Amino acid sequence: MKGFINKNFLLQNKTAKILYHNYAKRLPIIDYHSHLEVNEIAEDRKYKTLTDLWLSRDHYKWRAMRINGIDERYITGKTTAWDKFFKWSQTIPYCIGNPIYHWTHLELKRYFGIDLLLSPSNAEEVWKKCNAKLKLEDYSSRELIKRYNIKVICTTNDPIDVLKYHSIIAKDESFKVKVLPTMRNDMCIDISNKGFGRWLERLIDSSNKTIKDLDDFKNVIIERIEYFNKNGCRISDHSFESINFIQAKELEIKHIFNKKLETKTLNKEDIDKFKTHMMIFLGRQYYRLGWTMQLRIGALRNNNSRMFKLLGSDTGFDSISDLVFAKSLVKLLNALEEMHQLPKTIVYCLNPGFNEVIGSIIGCFNQKGIHSKIQFGPAWWFNDYKDGMEKQMIVLANFSLFSSFIGMTTDSRSLLSFSRHEYFRRILCNLIGKWAEDGEVPKDIEILGDIINKICFNNAKEYFKL
Amino acid sequence: MKGFINKNFLLQNKTAKILYHNYAKRLPIIDYHSHLEVNEIAEDRKYKTLTDLWLSRDHYKWRAMRINGIDERYITGKTTAWDKFFKWSQTIPYCIGNPIYHWTHLELKRYFGIDLLLSPSNAEEVWKKCNAKLKLEDYSSRELIKRYNIKVICTTNDPIDVLKYHSIIAKDESFKVKVLPTMRNDMCIDISNKGFGRWLERLIDSSNKTIKDLDDFKNVIIERIEYFNKNGCRISDHSFESINFIQAKELEIKHIFNKKLETKTLNKEDIDKFKTHMMIFLGRQYYRLGWTMQLRIGALRNNNSRMFKLLGSDTGFDSISDLVFAKSLVKLLNALEEMHQLPKTIVYCLNPGFNEVIGSIIGCFNQKGIHSKIQFGPAWWFNDYKDGMEKQMIVLANFSLFSSFIGMTTDSRSLLSFSRHEYFRRILCNLIGKWAEDGEVPKDIEILGDIINKICFNNAKEYFKL
Amino acid sequence: MKGFINKNFLLQNKTAKILYHNYAKRLPIIDYHSHLEVNEIAEDRKYKTLTDLWLSRDHYKWRAMRINGIDERYITGKTTAWDKFFKWSQTIPYCIGNPIYHWTHLELKRYFGIDLLLSPSNAEEVWKKCNAKLKLEDYSSRELIKRYNIKVICTTNDPIDVLKYHSIIAKDESFKVKVLPTMRNDMCIDISNKGFGRWLERLIDSSNKTIKDLDDFKNVIIERIEYFNKNGCRISDHSFESINFIQAKELEIKHIFNKKLETKTLNKEDIDKFKTHMMIFLGRQYYRLGWTMQLRIGALRNNNSRMFKLLGSDTGFDSISDLVFAKSLVKLLNALEEMHQLPKTIVYCLNPGFNEVIGSIIGCFNQKGIHSKIQFGPAWWFNDYKDGMEKQMIVLANFSLFSSFIGMTTDSRSLLSFSRHEYFRRILCNLIGKWAEDGEVPKDIEILGDIINKICFNNAKEYFKL
Repeated sequence: MKGFINKNFLLQNKTAKILYHNYAKRLPIIDYHSHLEVNEIAEDRKYKTLTDLWLSRDHYKWRAMRINGIDERYITGKTTAWDKFFKWSQTIPYCIGNPIYHWTHLELKRYFGIDLLLSPSNAEEVWKKCNAKLKLEDYSSRELIKRYNIKVICTTNDPIDVLKYHSIIAKDESFKVKVLPTMRNDMCIDISNKGFGRWLERLIDSSNKTIKDLDDFKNVIIERIEYFNKNGCRISDHSFESINFIQAKELEIKHIFNKKLETKTLNKEDIDKFKTHMMIFLGRQYYRLGWTMQLRIGALRNNNSRMFKLLGSDTGFDSISDLVFAKSLVKLLNALEEMHQLPKTIVYCLNPGFNEVIGSIIGCFNQKGIHSKIQFGPAWWFNDYKDGMEKQMIVLANFSLFSSFIGMTTDSRSLLSFSRHEYFRRILCNLIGKWAEDGEVPKDIEILGDIINKICFNNAKEYFKL
Repeated sequence: MKGFINKNFLLQNKTAKILYHNYAKRLPIIDYHSHLEVNEIAEDRKYKTLTDLWLSRDHYKWRAMRINGIDERYITGKTTAWDKFFKWSQTIPYCIGNPIYHWTHLELKRYFGIDLLLSPSNAEEVWKKCNAKLKLEDYSSRELIKRYNIKVICTTNDPIDVLKYHSIIAKDESFKVKVLPTMRNDMCIDISNKGFGRWLERLIDSSNKTIKDLDDFKNVIIERIEYFNKNGCRISDHSFESINFIQAKELEIKHIFNKKLETKTLNKEDIDKFKTHMMIFLGRQYYRLGWTMQLRIGALRNNNSRMFKLLGSDTGFDSISDLVFAKSLVKLLNALEEMHQLPKTIVYCLNPGFNEVIGSIIGCFNQKGIHSKIQFGPAWWFNDYKDGMEKQMIVLANFSLFSSFIGMTTDSRSLLSFSRHEYFRRILCNLIGKWAEDGEVPKDIEILGDIINKICFNNAKEYFKL
Repeated sequence: MKGFINKNFLLQNKTAKILYHNYAKRLPIIDYHSHLEVNEIAEDRKYKTLTDLWLSRDHYKWRAMRINGIDERYITGKTTAWDKFFKWSQTIPYCIGNPIYHWTHLELKRYFGIDLLLSPSNAEEVWKKCNAKLKLEDYSSRELIKRYNIKVICTTNDPIDVLKYHSIIAKDESFKVKVLPTMRNDMCIDISNKGFGRWLERLIDSSNKTIKDLDDFKNVIIERIEYFNKNGCRISDHSFESINFIQAKELEIKHIFNKKLETKTLNKEDIDKFKTHMMIFLGRQYYRLGWTMQLRIGALRNNNSRMFKLLGSDTGFDSISDLVFAKSLVKLLNALEEMHQLPKTIVYCLNPGFNEVIGSIIGCFNQKGIHSKIQFGPAWWFNDYKDGMEKQMIVLANFSLFSSFIGMTTDSRSLLSFSRHEYFRRILCNLIGKWAEDGEVPKDIEILGDIINKICFNNAKEYFKL
C-alpha cells in the first residue's frame, strides 16, 4: 500500500489534482492568525523531544487523550516526555475519522519523512527517529517555518504585551518571514471578567499613565493601539460567546466604568452596554488605521470547573455555544456603518448551524473598491476538518463571492501546524474540482486556477496589506 | 468544450437524465409565488436594454455587485444602462460557486441563445446581441412568459391594491396564462410598523368605510379578502422574523387597537397579542374560503440603516435570522386546528438550520383527504441554490411525504426567472436519480417519473385548485 | 431487477461490502433502549395479523398515513385489521425517500421473505402470506427476537412499574436473551406535569411509604432505584425539551416540594430549581451504582391538542424543538463532575442543528480508564435515517473518538424493528467504506473491521457492563 499521506491525499478527482499540483501547492502562505510563541521564533528555539514540540501546548491532542480515558498525569502531569508520547501513540489509533488523525500523519510525513500509522507498536521507532532529527540544524523553529513558503505569521497578543520579540525579528535580516502582532482586545471590553481589575493595573503599569475615568482608559488603549500599529499590527481580534448589543449614552458608560473602578457590582445590562460602547470605540480606531477587525462568535469556554482550577483556560475544556447573535451582530456592524467607520471585518462562527446566518449578514455591509469587505472567516477550531471546511466554503460560495475569500489561517499553537494550509488547500482544490467535474462551475483550469491563487494567497495579500 | 449550460447541466447520473428529459422538461408550470409587476404583463411591455430587463429590479445582482466593491452609482444610481451592465459583467466572474452564476448563464442561453461565460471581455458582444433581440416581437413580457409552459403566475399584492391589471389579463382571451393576485397581509397584523397608520388611512380610502374600532378593521379586511377572492386570489402570504404567540381575550385586543388608533405607545406584549389575534382571525378567513396560507419565517430585514434611508426595503440588505419560533408556530397552527379551521398552509423557513424543525412540525396537523395539508415550502430566497434545495428536499423526504410536495416557486422579480423552474427540476431529477442509482429508492423509472410529475406540476394543481 | 432489499442494500462501495459481510453482519446486538412491551416477550405472544404486529403501536406509520390524508378511523379507529393494512398499503408508495419505506421493505424481506414493493395492488397477497406465516411456531415474539443475534434488550419503565415480567424472563433458562428494565425517571423531576400528583400517589402505593416532604420523596425514589438495580437495570432515561439549570439551596427545594404537596401554584423558576436539584440527586445515585444516565434533549411534544385529547401522548404528534440548552447542559454535567459523581452519560439530541454543540460538549467531561465516558447518542427518532445517522456519525468522528462510539439502539415499539440494527450497520459500513475509498482513513480492512466490531457490539458491551 502506498502511504496514507500520499501525493494525492484528499484529491479525489482529476481536476482537484491539477489544481493542487499546478496551483495551490506552490503558493506562499499568509497565516493571519495563530497562537505561536514569538519568543520561540526570535530565539530560533530547538526542541529536545517530539513531546516538547508536539504535545506540550496542543490542547487538541490533550482532549483526545482524555476522551480516550488516559490519566491526566500523562497529559499535563509530571511524567517523562516518553511516557506522554507513548500515551499519545495509544490514543491516535482511536482518532480515525478525526482531523487530528490527518494532521498527525501529515506532520510526521512532511517534517520527519515518516510514513507509518502511529501506534503503540511503532511508537519507539517514531520517537527515536524524530528525536534524532530534532537534533539537526534544520529543525530549529525558524527552519521548521521555512519548510512551507511562509510570508507572514500573525501572533496573538494582549494589549499589555511588550512587542520586543516582534521587533527583534523585524530587524533580523537573516529571517525574511514577517512575524506581526495581532491585538487581542477581549480584556478592553470584558469588564465582567474576574481578572479585569488586575489586568487594568497591569495596563496602567505598561503605560505609565493613571486611569481615573473612561476617558483615561480610552486614551491608554489608543496609545497601545498606536504602539501595536508601529510594530506592524494591522489586525485585531475579539471572541464572544454571543453579542448582546445595547447602546447607551457616553455619560452612562462613564458611570458604569466608575462603578467598576470603585469595585461596585455591575448588572448584566451595565456589562452589555459597556461592551457595546467599547466595541464601537475600538471599531472606529481600527477603521482609522485601516486595520481588520476579527470577531469570533460562539465559544462556550471553561466548561469543566474542576479542570479549570487545575489548568486554567485554553486547555481543552471548551465547546460550541448555541446562543443567538444575529440581530446584535447586525446592530454592531450597522452602528459603525452609520458613522462611515466600519473597518474591514472577519466574522468567525464556531457553531456551523449558524453558517448561513453569517453568510447572509456579511453581504449587507460593503465598501466601494473592496472585494468582500466583511469576510466569513474560515472554518474555525472545532470546524477545522474536511466536512466543516466544506460546509463553510459551500455557504460562502452560495451566499457571497467565493472568489474573494481570504482563505485559511491555522489558529495553531504548534510550529508543525503550517501543514494545515496544505490540508486546507487540498480540500479546497478537491471541492472546486468536484464542482467542475459535476458541471457546476466551468471546467476551465485557467479560471479555476485563478480562484485558487486568489483564495490561497492573493486575496489575503490584497485584503490585509501586511 | 461544449457550453457550460448544456443539455445535461446538473444531471449528474443516468437516471437523472432520463427523468429530466422524459418527464420534468415537458411539464407545465404553476408559479404560485412571485413578485412580478402585473402591469408589465397586462401591457405586454417591451424592454429597451438588457439592463432594463435584468438589472433594474433584481436585488440579488445588486448585492453581488456591492460585495464585489462596485460603486453604488453603477448599481442603483444615475449612470447609463451600458455602464451598469458592464459593471455586472465585471462582477459575474467573481460569482463562480453562487447560484447567480448559474441563473445568469441559464437565462442568457435560454432567452438569447448565448453560450458565452459573461465577462468584461465579451460584455459588448452580449450587450449588442441581447438588445437587438429585445427589439423583436417575441421578446415582449408575454412572449417571454410563453417560452416556458406556464399555466399560472401568482403575483404578490397588498390588501389595498386595486386588481385592475389582473382583471384585464383575465378578460384577455389572447393570453391563456392565469395571472392571479396573492394577498400579502403583513400590514394587517403589523401594528408596530411605523407605516401602519399611513397604511390604515389608505385602507380606509380604498374601502370607503370608516374604521373606529377592531370590528370595523376586521370588516374592512374581510371586504378586501372577498374582493381578492373574486379576482381569483386563493393564496395569502405572511412574513415574520419569528412568531411570538400570546393569546388574549378579544376585549383586550380591542383596547390595544384603540390605543393604536389614539396613537398611544404599545408595548412588546401588546404587539404580540395583537399579531396573534389577527393571525387567527385571518387563518379562519382563509379556511372559510379554501385558501392556502403561506408563512415565511426567519428573515432579518433592512440591516443597513444608511442604505435603507437611500433605497428603502427589498434592495439587498437583508439576512437570515437565528431566532427560535417552533413553540409559537405550533401554537398558532394548533389554535386554528382546535377550532377545526386550520387552512392549508405552506411554511417557509429562511434559516436552513431549522429545516428539521419545520419538517417535523408540519406532520402534526393533517386533514382527511388532503395529501400533505401543511407543506414545507421549497428552499426560499438565500436557500434557492443546489445544496439549499437538496437540503430542503432531503429533510422533507425523510420527515414527511416527498411525493406530495408541491414543488418550486420562483419568488422572482424578473421575467427571465422562470428558468429557475428548469433549474429546480434538474436538481430534483438529479437527487432522485442519485437515490435510484445508490439503491436508496427503487430504480423503476415509471414510479420515479410519477413522482416527478407530481412534484413539478400535479401536486400544485391539486393542492391549490387554481 | 433484483429485489429492492438485496444483499448489498445501502452498501455503495466495495470496502463497505467487505466490512458489512465480513464483520458487521455476524455481530450480536445489544439493544440498550427500546419501548417493547416486556409482557409480550414473557408470554411469548403470537400475532393474529400483520396489523397486530406492525400497525397497532407504530406511531411512525400512523403519522405517515395521516400526512397522506387517510381518515383517522383507518389508523387508530374501529375498523378491521385488513382495512388498516390496506390503507397502509395505499400510503407506503408515497413514502419513497422516507426511512419508513426502507424499514417496511426490510421487515417484509427479513421476516417474511417478501420481495415485493408493497402497494394496493399486491396488498392482499402480502396480507395472506404474512398472516399465514404468523400462524407458524417460529413467529412468536421470542422467535422473532431470535432472528437477529440479540444478547440484550432494554425496555423502558416507569419507577412505579412492577418488574415481574423481567424477572420471569430472567429466570427462564430456555430464553437466553437478557431483557432488562431501564428506569425512565422523567416523572421524578417533572413537578409541573399535570399528572404529577396522581403519579405521586401511585408511587406511594407502590412503596408502602408515606411522602410528607422532600426527604421522604427522595428515599422512596432511592428504594425504587435499588429495586430496579436488583432487577438488572443499569441505565436511566430522561427526556427534556430543553434544560434550564438553576441551582438553589436544599431548603428552598424543600419549600417548593411542600408547596406542590399543598397543591399550591409553582412558578417557572420554582420548577426549574426543582428539576435541577432532582437531576443532580438522581445523577449521584446513578454514579453510585455505576449506571449510565441517558439525557434526551429537544422534543416538543403533544403539538396537536385535539388529537392529544383523543389519543394521548406518543401517538405521532410530536416535533423537534429549537430551544437552546448548551449552557445548562454544561452546568448540569459540571455540577456532578465537581462532586466527582458524574455518571457515564449518553446525550441524545433531537435537533440535528445542534449536533456540533453536543459533539463538542461531551469532550469536556472524561474519566481515567473509560473510553468516551460521555457518549453522543445515536441519531434519535426523526433522525434515524441515512442522512441523519451519517450527520451524527460525521460530527461524532470529527469532534470526538468515533472508535469508542457505543452505536445503535432501536428506540422501537415493534419486534420487527431489530432489523434497524442491520440498517444502521449497513449505513455505518458504507460511511467508513467511503472514507477508505476516498483516502480519508487508511484502507486497511483489519483496522476498519476492528472499528466495526467495536461500534456494533464491543463498545456497548464494555460501556454498559450489562
